[in-house]
Parts: sequence; structure tokens; C-alpha cells
Amino acid sequence: MKRVAVVMGSDSDLKTMQGAVDMLKKLEIPFSVRVISAHRTPDAAREFAASAAGEGYGAIICGAGKAAHLAGAFAANTILPVIGVPIKSSTLDGLDALLSTVQMPSGMPVATVAIDGSSNAALLAAQMIALSDEALAGRIAELRRAQTEKVLARDAEIRAQFE
Amino acid sequence: MKRVAVVMGSDSDLKTMQGAVDMLKKLEIPFSVRVISAHRTPDAAREFAASAAGEGYGAIICGAGKAAHLAGAFAANTILPVIGVPIKSSTLDGLDALLSTVQMPSGMPVATVAIDGSSNAALLAAQMIALSDEALAGRIAELRRAQTEKVLARDAEIRAQFE
Amino acid sequence: MKRVAVVMGSDSDLKTMQGAVDMLKKLEIPFSVRVISAHRTPDAAREFAASAAGEGYGAIICGAGKAAHLAGAFAANTILPVIGVPIKSSTLDGLDALLSTVQMPSGMPVATVAIDGSSNAALLAAQMIALSDEALAGRIAELRRAQTEKVLARDAEIRAQFE
Amino acid sequence: MKRVAVVMGSDSDLKTMQGAVDMLKKLEIPFSVRVISAHRTPDAAREFAASAAGEGYGAIICGAGKAAHLAGAFAANTILPVIGVPIKSSTLDGLDALLSTVQMPSGMPVATVAIDGSSNAALLAAQMIALSDEALAGRIAELRRAQTEKVLARDAEIRAQFE
Amino acid sequence: MKRVAVVMGSDSDLKTMQGAVDMLKKLEIPFSVRVISAHRTPDAAREFAASAAGEGYGAIICGAGKAAHLAGAFAANTILPVIGVPIKSSTLDGLDALLSTVQMPSGMPVATVAIDGSSNAALLAAQMIALSDEALAGRIAELRRAQTEKVLARDAEIRAQFE
Amino acid sequence: MKRVAVVMGSDSDLKTMQGAVDMLKKLEIPFSVRVISAHRTPDAAREFAASAAGEGYGAIICGAGKAAHLAGAFAANTILPVIGVPIKSSTLDGLDALLSTVQMPSGMPVATVAIDGSSNAALLAAQMIALSDEALAGRIAELRRAQTEKVLARDAEIRAQFE
Amino acid sequence: MKRVAVVMGSDSDLKTMQGAVDMLKKLEIPFSVRVISAHRTPDAAREFAASAAGEGYGAIICGAGKAAHLAGAFAANTILPVIGVPIKSSTLDGLDALLSTVQMPSGMPVATVAIDGSSNAALLAAQMIALSDEALAGRIAELRRAQTEKVLARDAEIRAQFE
Amino acid sequence: MKRVAVVMGSDSDLKTMQGAVDMLKKLEIPFSVRVISAHRTPDAAREFAASAAGEGYGAIICGAGKAAHLAGAFAANTILPVIGVPIKSSTLDGLDALLSTVQMPSGMPVATVAIDGSSNAALLAAQMIALSDEALAGRIAELRRAQTEKVLARDAEIRAQFE
Repeated sequence: MKRVAVVMGSDSDLKTMQGAVDMLKKLEIPFSVRVISAHRTPDAAREFAASAAGEGYGAIICGAGKAAHLAGAFAANTILPVIGVPIKSSTLDGLDALLSTVQMPSGMPVATVAIDGSSNAALLAAQMIALSDEALAGRIAELRRAQTEKVLARDAEIRAQFE
Repeated sequence: MKRVAVVMGSDSDLKTMQGAVDMLKKLEIPFSVRVISAHRTPDAAREFAASAAGEGYGAIICGAGKAAHLAGAFAANTILPVIGVPIKSSTLDGLDALLSTVQMPSGMPVATVAIDGSSNAALLAAQMIALSDEALAGRIAELRRAQTEKVLARDAEIRAQFE
Repeated sequence: MKRVAVVMGSDSDLKTMQGAVDMLKKLEIPFSVRVISAHRTPDAAREFAASAAGEGYGAIICGAGKAAHLAGAFAANTILPVIGVPIKSSTLDGLDALLSTVQMPSGMPVATVAIDGSSNAALLAAQMIALSDEALAGRIAELRRAQTEKVLARDAEIRAQFE
Repeated sequence: MKRVAVVMGSDSDLKTMQGAVDMLKKLEIPFSVRVISAHRTPDAAREFAASAAGEGYGAIICGAGKAAHLAGAFAANTILPVIGVPIKSSTLDGLDALLSTVQMPSGMPVATVAIDGSSNAALLAAQMIALSDEALAGRIAELRRAQTEKVLARDAEIRAQFE
Repeated sequence: MKRVAVVMGSDSDLKTMQGAVDMLKKLEIPFSVRVISAHRTPDAAREFAASAAGEGYGAIICGAGKAAHLAGAFAANTILPVIGVPIKSSTLDGLDALLSTVQMPSGMPVATVAIDGSSNAALLAAQMIALSDEALAGRIAELRRAQTEKVLARDAEIRAQFE
Repeated sequence: MKRVAVVMGSDSDLKTMQGAVDMLKKLEIPFSVRVISAHRTPDAAREFAASAAGEGYGAIICGAGKAAHLAGAFAANTILPVIGVPIKSSTLDGLDALLSTVQMPSGMPVATVAIDGSSNAALLAAQMIALSDEALAGRIAELRRAQTEKVLARDAEIRAQFE
Repeated sequence: MKRVAVVMGSDSDLKTMQGAVDMLKKLEIPFSVRVISAHRTPDAAREFAASAAGEGYGAIICGAGKAAHLAGAFAANTILPVIGVPIKSSTLDGLDALLSTVQMPSGMPVATVAIDGSSNAALLAAQMIALSDEALAGRIAELRRAQTEKVLARDAEIRAQFE
Repeated sequence: MKRVAVVMGSDSDLKTMQGAVDMLKKLEIPFSVRVISAHRTPDAAREFAASAAGEGYGAIICGAGKAAHLAGAFAANTILPVIGVPIKSSTLDGLDALLSTVQMPSGMPVATVAIDGSSNAALLAAQMIALSDEALAGRIAELRRAQTEKVLARDAEIRAQFE
């Protein structure tokens, strides 16, 4: 089965990226977690990205804040889909990371999810891998059904509460 | 081979979404082009999304402007990866479409690309499908090499021009 | 008398939407409270919206955060007036929800109120229903007078405090 | 039948507000068009608003740009629903008018539509009046069906074009 | 001597507007403090504004948040200079109040100061009145000198601390 | 009679600042027009500001774009009221100039008007000077009446056009 | 004498970056012009940056639009000062490029100038090199004097025009 | 060795600017710390800037919030490189300071770093001075290597933690 890499620019991003880890575990997708900086360890970024396809990865999730170049630096060195998670930092409420991640130039897409949306990044990676993995597709569908059930249950509770 | 759907909320979006069509042709990926509105033809949106996996689609590209709900409406009814293209309209420079597309709630990701970035949306769809299609992976790698060559050639020209 | 539906995308929005409930009680307007998600329970959204007019509703208030599609999803399936409450979430201060709610395309309006402005949403619903309900119009006028009196009283106090 | 007032802060706004006029004509709703400024003719604003309910109006549409106070000034003097159309002017792309219109304080809602969304404002007014006017409700439903048909027709054309 | 009015849209704004009161006291300028709402007590706003010049006021300071129409409502009814203080509320960090206050249409200026800048509003009012009051001009110049001295003193301290 | 200075940071701003000149002429207020740059001719800025009160000026209007420091540089060297006109330049739609002008620190106000609002800046200067000049107050009141008449006339025309 | 590199992400940026070229010529600073893309030719970027100090460069100017990673990619591979020019593209008015360039993480600064401010980037590079080049410092001082003279001359003209 | 000046507009900015002090100490660069306000002590600003080159400074770091004119005021009076640190204040999340610092007019650059990015400002100053100081260049290179090592070490830890 294809693996997913969860990469973050700084270990202080782990609290945000934990959501991706949890989702990958729930969907039983093998994964690695890495701290790689586009600016401080650019060689590690390039090497990881360039060898990722050969090492069995199917998608790379990159979480970074501020001038978030991490996802772009990975995208430049692989044709695997790269998923970007803009991380909110102490100023500008994540808008800087969002624009730095999503506004990629022609020829070099990054699949961007919501600010701090790491669990969605993992789910998106899963949806990609599930294109050729029916068992995983089944687990995603199950997750979606559970999600729906949960909303329906809460609806019933709230509805009753106000009747 | 998996197909890609290029869906737009209004036929006036075709001039922007043509970039996706051109890229899919270049990469020899079969595709359909549809005009489906999350608000004006919600049943068509739901039906298309719900049956897309079964009909051989591997990814759905949704382009929409303003309060761009199209990608989300598709995502709600399929577990295929949905790629959102925020389209710039007459006010707010596409920021409304960007936020409406990317800021999806937990459990329901949309892979968002740059404002008006339709060719990147197609390339991203190709990267997803290429996870299980080596020939396509080869064509993408070739496209990337050509891209690199083009920049190197322009670099040589400009460099010479200023020497 | 026409009823009002207070719908929220997640039960975590209840603390914000309570303002609508309180206002509807104060104005003696019958109401229901529902948790319906445009993305997680899209069928429930469609069914509720499509049958709302027939079940005696006069307006539907939809509160949602982030890429807030809830009001639009309801508007797509009813010709009752739909009132949108953009809810502030952990990033972007509600701007994402505001733009996702208000920037609706031609032919599909959502009556949008201020970010987190749920009590105003209820008051607006009341003003709509009061077009054909003189008693309710009277209660609204009374509420407005009380509001005015309260400001005048506070003015007198503050004025005196600084004399 | 209830009338609708289409009010604009300056006659230069007429090109934007014409969309409301056209929609009201299409739906056969009687209407008046007025140029009233919250700042230059505040007395006219107050008098019109205060007497509007008595003169048979069911909703007031206010279009204004920049620091758009017009809708708020009307709302302060009537309990009729007031619909605000933020108008884009030469700077800030309409964001100033949007925030000035929608961010109303508690107790004084303005039903805000998209920037330059005057035809939606008229449709929203129609939806309000239709709460007690079945014939109008029928005309709105018909308009919605026509809208749907138009998208379906364009879908068929575009779909064929790319097959 | 000309008086200054300190008007706020809600008594909850007093904690912000206290800065204006303190500055007016320091400069020995007579003043009144009022709670007047553009929307809840529009008649009080109009009457106060219209009679202010005759009652000896030289400037009116208006502090309001969100869709801040207060300064504009005053400006519409007086030719005294009106000074607007945009007040930060729970969302959008005061940007809504800033744009609603400063982006006034042609013919109706509001002298806008920084978000939550109430003491500067009072100082600006003082500068206006000092145009024909030499003693006040002297007190302002003295305040400015004290301000300069304070920075110079802090500079000396900090400079020494790092030597 | 007090004079007004109309200062701009670059002669390319003249087309925007002409509105101030026209308004001052209409109100018969003596004025000077200057090109002074906070950054390129800082000495001229300081000298003009420092001597302005002594030379009979009653207010200084400063128009500048981008990182607009001009009004602040003047305010730092005079206790005359300084009025700032943020000028829209080729990027960011004037938001940079607005924030650079209005967000002044405590103790140093700039009376800021709308982006490109130079005629309002002149009118505000006039309102300040009119505090001690009854004839000017009369001319301003007359201008306001004419403004009102103009709106009323346009209202009558538009109203008739749609009857 | 130290050289300056003028690098752009795409040859379409040349019209904006020409300003840097012109300024470097005017100040008689030797320079190279290169088209290097952080994403399309990442190896060229790394190699150029890593060898730049050894090849006699004193500063590197990087101009790029959208998710502008170019300056950061250079900064990651050199300790020469890197100057970033955010370039306005077809959406968002350059805000995306500005935030992507300036919001660099700790340990990896990019000296950012105004959107489209390429001539200032060159001047800044010159100021850095002039720290150890008195002749260049003299030419910069001369340029500044000429700049001042030009403003003074335009001031005299405009002043006379309105007397 | 060239010195660096760390200037702040108010002593309350010291907590933010301490990062610059710490970095300068770490790199063994002599420095001074000053509190100088563009508006409250403009003469001190001018005098310091004008004499800085003569007194052995190689770069000036200016930190200021809100309408941050400090860096510009220094740039106007020296040809030394001026580095601006936009400081986040109580509203607008530092966007006002960023735009006021970076959007400098042609001919007057300020090298702007991230909001609250004072340590990067010091590092940038060091990179400038290191152009003619090989020992300093060595210390910067060492700092960069340590930075890289730290990320690699954290990577190893996190990687192991999730294996």
C-alpha cells in the first residue's frame, strides 16, 4: 500500500499536524512523520521529495506557517501529489501561509486545504490513494457514513432539546 | 484509464477553465466538460458526484467564482478527490472564491489550487491518476522536463541580452 | 403563524445561534432548531429546504463558519427567504464565512447579517413574517421602542456621570 | 400587493441598481425608484422610511457605496425589512460598502446581498412578499425553473462541444 | 471656550472612549459625554448634531464599532467638524469600523483617527479649537514637549541599559 | 483669514489633489499648493510645518500614496490640525496609504479622510477654520444646502422616470 | 567591485525588473540578469545561490509573483543578503507575493521592498555594497541629491502655478 | 567593525526588539539600542540618521508599530541600509505596520522583514556587514550550520517517535 509522508517545517508545528497523523492511523494508511525545512534543510527537502515516489509514497503532506514554501519546495522535486496545510502563526491569522501555499505558479500545483486543516489533508491523501485501493475506499466511505450519523444524532438531540 | 470531469458553475467560466481542458488533452487524459451549478442545478450536481466513481472518473475539477460552493457540493457526494479552482469575478479579486473553496470543514477536503489556476488543477488531477498509471507518470515527468528546458532556454537568452 | 427554522452546520455553533433562539422566544415566534450540514448531511439539507414552505416555515436561518455553504445549500432548494449568519471560527475572524455566505451568484440570494449576528437574523426573520402579521409587527415595534428607551436611559446616566 | 422601494444614495448608482428594477418588472411587483442620501438628504431618508409601511411598501432596497450608511439609516426608521446592496466604487473593490452594510449592530438588521448584487436584492424582496402572496410565489418558482433550464441547456451544449 | 462632545454608540464603548475624556480634562477643555445611537436613537443624534453649534460646541467626537455610522449621522446634520473613532469589536479587528467611518462620500467628511484612538480624537479636537484659542494652543504645545521629554528620558535609560 | 496648505508628496498626485484646490476656491479660502516629500525633501517638510502656524495657516492637507508618511511628518512638527488624504497607487487599492495615514500613534493625530478624498479634506479644513469665521460657516452651510438641493432634484427626475 | 544578480522567476517579469537593471547601470554597478525558477529550475537556483559569494556577488535581487518562493529559495543557499521584490500578478494585487516574500521564518531573512519596487531593490543592494565602497557611496549620495533637487524644482513650479 | 543601531519607536517595543539584540550579541557585532520616535522626537531621528555613517554604523534597524514611519524617517536622512521591523500592535495584526514599512516610494528603500521579525533584522544587518568582514561571514555560516543541525536532530527525534 502507498505510504503518506507528513512533513512539517518546524517541530513546533506538530500540535497542528497531529490531526493528519490521527486520520492516517484511523484509515490504516502507513505513514512517516518528518521535520524538514525548505530553508534550513533544503537538501533534505530535495532528497526526500526526489526519492519519495521510489520509496513507495503516494502523497506528501506539507504543513508550514508564515511564508510557507515547504509544499512548493517538495512539489518542485517530485510528481507525486503534494498537499499543503497552511499553518496559522502569531500574526495575520494564517493568511500569509494560505497565500504562500495556494498561489503556486503554472505547472507546479499544490493541493491546498484549509488553514490548520491537517486532518483534511490526510483524508485528501487517502482519497487519492483510494483511487487504486478499494479496501481503503471502503474505509473512507465508512468514515463518511459515521460522520453523517454523528451529525444526524446531534440533530436529533438538539431538535428535541428545543421542542 | 480514469477520466477527469471539468465542471464549471456557469458557462461564462469556460474561458478560465479552458486551461484545464488544454492540459488534460496535452497529457492524453480522457475528460468530460460540464456546466453544473451548486445552486441552480443542485440535483445534477448531486447525481453527477454520486455516480462519478462508478462511471470511471478519477478526479473532479470544479471551477466557480464568488461564494464558490461547487467543489464543496461535489465533495459532499463522492469520495473521489475534488479539486477546486477559485475563479476571479468582478469584485474582490477572487478572494471570496478562494476562501469559499479552501476553508472546508473537517471531514470534507477540497484540493484547492490558485485563483484562476485551472491548468494546475488538471495537472494535479493527472498526478493523482498517475499514482496507478506509469505511462501517465512518464508524460507528466516529460512535461516537467520541457518546462525546465523552457526556463533554462529563456535564462540563456536573457542572460546573453544583458551581458 | 409562520414558523422559523434555526439551522446550524455543527452543534458547536449553538452557543452563537442561541441569540436567534432567544430573540424568537422574545417575539413569540414558533421555531425549530436543527443541526444540518451542507456537506455531511446534504440530503437532510435538501429535504428540509424543499419541504419547509409546505410545513409552515416563513424563513430559514442558517448559521455556519469557514467555507459556509449552508445558507446557499438551503437557498438552492426553496424559495423561502434564507438568512445567513456567518460564524467566526478559529482563523480569519469570520471573513471566510462572511464572503462564503454573502457573495451568492445571481438568482440565488441569501439575506446575510453580521458575523455572529444571530439575534439580528431572528429579528430580520420576524420583520419578514410581520409583513402579514400585524400583532407581530406590534411586538417588533415594541422591542424597538424598548431598545430606544434603554439607550436613552444609559445616555442620561453617562451624561450625569460626567457633568 | 406590497410595493418595493429601490433607493440609491446617488444617481450614479443607477447603472448598478437597474438590475433590481429589471427583476421587479419581471416579477410584476410594483415599485418606486428614489435617490435619497443618508448624508445629503437625511430628512428625506427618515421621512420615507418612517412612512413606508403605511404607504404599502413591503421591503426597501438600499444601494450605496463606500461608507454605505443608507440601508442602516432606513432600518433605523422602519420595521420593514431593509435589503442592502453594497456598491463597488473606485477603491477597495466594494469591501468598504460590504462591511458598512452588513456589520450592523444588534437590534437593527440589514439583509445584505453580494457586492453589486442588485437583482438578487429584488429577488429577496420578492421572496419576502411572496410569503403572503401565492401568485408571486408561483412567478418566483417559475423564474427558478427557467434558471435551472438555462443551466441545463448550456450544460448540454458545452458537454457536446467537448465530446 | 468651545466645548467638545464625546458621543458613543453604546455605553460599552465607554472603556475605549475614556481616553478622549482624559485628554480633554488634561487640556482643560469643557466637554459632555453622551450615549447616542445612529440606529436606536436617530432622533437624538439628529437633534444633538443640529443644535451643537448653537450650544457652543466646537467639535464632536463619535466613537462606534462594526458598521460605524455614528460619525456620519452627525456629520449629516452639522457643519461642525466631526471626528470619528473606529472601535474594534469582537470580529474583524476594527477594519469594519475603520472603513465605515473614513470612507465618507464627497461633501461629507469625517476626520478619522486610528482604531480605538480616542485620546488622539480629543487632541485633534483641541488642535481645531486652538486655532482661535492661544491659551489652549500653549497647553497643547506643552503636552507635546512633555511627550518629547518622556521619549528622550526613556531613550537615555534604554541606551544606558545596553551600553 | 486663515490659509490652507495643500501639500502632496509628488507632483503626480496633483490630479488627485486638484479636488482640494477646487473646493478651497469655491469656499474662497486662501491657499498654497506645495510638492514636499517626507523622504526626499524632509527638511522642507519640517521647515514648512514648523513655521506654518506663524505664517497664517489654519490647517495643512497632506496627500500621499503607498507608505504615506507625509501627514505624519507634518504632524510631528506643528500643532496645527493636519488632514491626511490617502492616495490610491498602482497596487493594493489605497489600503497601504490609508493605514499608513490613519493608524497614527498616541499623541500625534492625523485627521484622515477617504482614499482619494481630497475635496473632503478641503471641506474639513474649511469646517475647522469656520469655527472662528462666521462668513465661511455661512458659505459652507450654503454649499451643503446646494448639495441637498441637487440630490432632491435628481431624486425628482429619477422618480418620475420610473413612474 | 561586488556584482549584483537580478534574478526573476519568469521572463514575463522582465518588464517589472527592468527598473533594477536601470538603477544598477545608473550607479555603475556590474550585474547579471537571470531567469531562474524556484520550482521549475530548483537546481539552478541552488547552484547559483551556493556559488554566488565565491563569484563576486554582493547581493542577489529576486523578483517573483504569486506564491513567491524565489527569494527564500536563494536565501536558503547563501549568506549573501537576498533582496525580494514581490511582483503583482493578475489577482490579489501583489498581496500574495508580498506575504510570501516578507514573512520568512526565523534564521532566514529576505530584505523585502515594495510590490513592484525593483528600482528600490537595486538601490538597496547598492547601499549594502557601498558600506565598503566609498566611490559608490558617493554616487548614491549624488543620486539622492538629484532626487531632492527634482522635488524642489517641481515644488517651485507647482507653487508658482497656484499663486 | 561596523556597528548596528537597534532603534524602536517606543520603549514598549523592547520586548519585540530584544530578538535583534540577542542575535547581534550571538554574532559578536557591536550595537547601540535607542528609543527614537519619528513623530515625538523627529529631531533626534534626523540627527542620529544623518550622523550614523560617520559614527561607524553599518546598518540601522528600526522597529515600529501601527503607521510605522520610523524606518522611512531614518532612510530619508542616511544612505546606510535601513532595516524595518513591522511590529504587531493591538489591532490589525501588524498589517498596518507592514504596509507602512515596506511600501516605500521610489528612491527610498527600506529592507523590510517579517512582522515582529527582529532577530531576522539583526541577521540581515550581519549579512550586509559580512560583505566586507570575513570573520563575521564565518560566524554567520556557523550559525546557519547550527540551525541546520538543530532541524536535522529534531527530524530524527520526531521520525523515531512515529516509527
